Amino acid sequence: MSSSYSNYTNSPCAACKFLRRKCTSECVFAPYFPPEEPTKFANVHRIFGASNVSKILHEVAPHQREDAVNSLAYEAEARLKDPVYGCVGAISVLQRQVLRLQRELEETNADLMRYASCLGNETTSAYGGRRS
Amino acid sequence: MSSSYSNYTNSPCAACKFLRRKCTSECVFAPYFPPEEPTKFANVHRIFGASNVSKILHEVAPHQREDAVNSLAYEAEARLKDPVYGCVGAISVLQRQVLRLQRELEETNADLMRYASCLGNETTSAYGGRRS
Repeated sequence: MSSSYSNYTNSPCAACKFLRRKCTSECVFAPYFPPEEPTKFANVHRIFGASNVSKILHEVAPHQREDAVNSLAYEAEARLKDPVYGCVGAISVLQRQVLRLQRELEETNADLMRYASCLGNETTSAYGGRRS
Repeated sequence: MSSSYSNYTNSPCAACKFLRRKCTSECVFAPYFPPEEPTKFANVHRIFGASNVSKILHEVAPHQREDAVNSLAYEAEARLKDPVYGCVGAISVLQRQVLRLQRELEETNADLMRYASCLGNETTSAYGGRRS
């Protein structure tokens, strides 16, 4: 839970400030949108809309709301930076990286098997074994 | 461009049908939300809101709108399946997979180096070289 949660009586949360409304102790946004981080709410508001964010927060358990807000903020920031792909662009990059690494690992494992079999032959030969 | 784009005169696109409004030839949604895929629009509407989707479509170049809609649809579906993490969950899974593969590749490369150096020694020894 954000440290600013206890401050709601002093100053409105970033969401209520943005929406120009009174921030009450029941405000669903207050624990996750501290007044010191106005951009966090502005971003999710611009991409998802306050009402959708509020709906999502009410759908998830209170102990998961901070994670939900952070993932929404991440998605919103990614969409503002890249309106075409948003964070789906990051998924594509990571998927390509996984495929490249898997291919590289397969090749390295194949090299390792070849070396291991060579070493087996050399060792056998050096110590009097038979070469086929 | 979706094949149903040319059908806007016959039946409203999925967005206009959902929003119960007349679908005109200028409809920004029509090329990307064919009437045969009503869930695609329902999902992005539920997560982003029609007005935000429209704003994003107007922000990007026409040739990028299909990609934008598809990435929004992907994000919306992921958020509906997992309201806490949405597609950021997929990013975390992929990031962990990349780290695991990188570690595995490093270990396999280290094994390969050890085998290569062993093989060098064995070969030198077998053919009369000196062992250090």
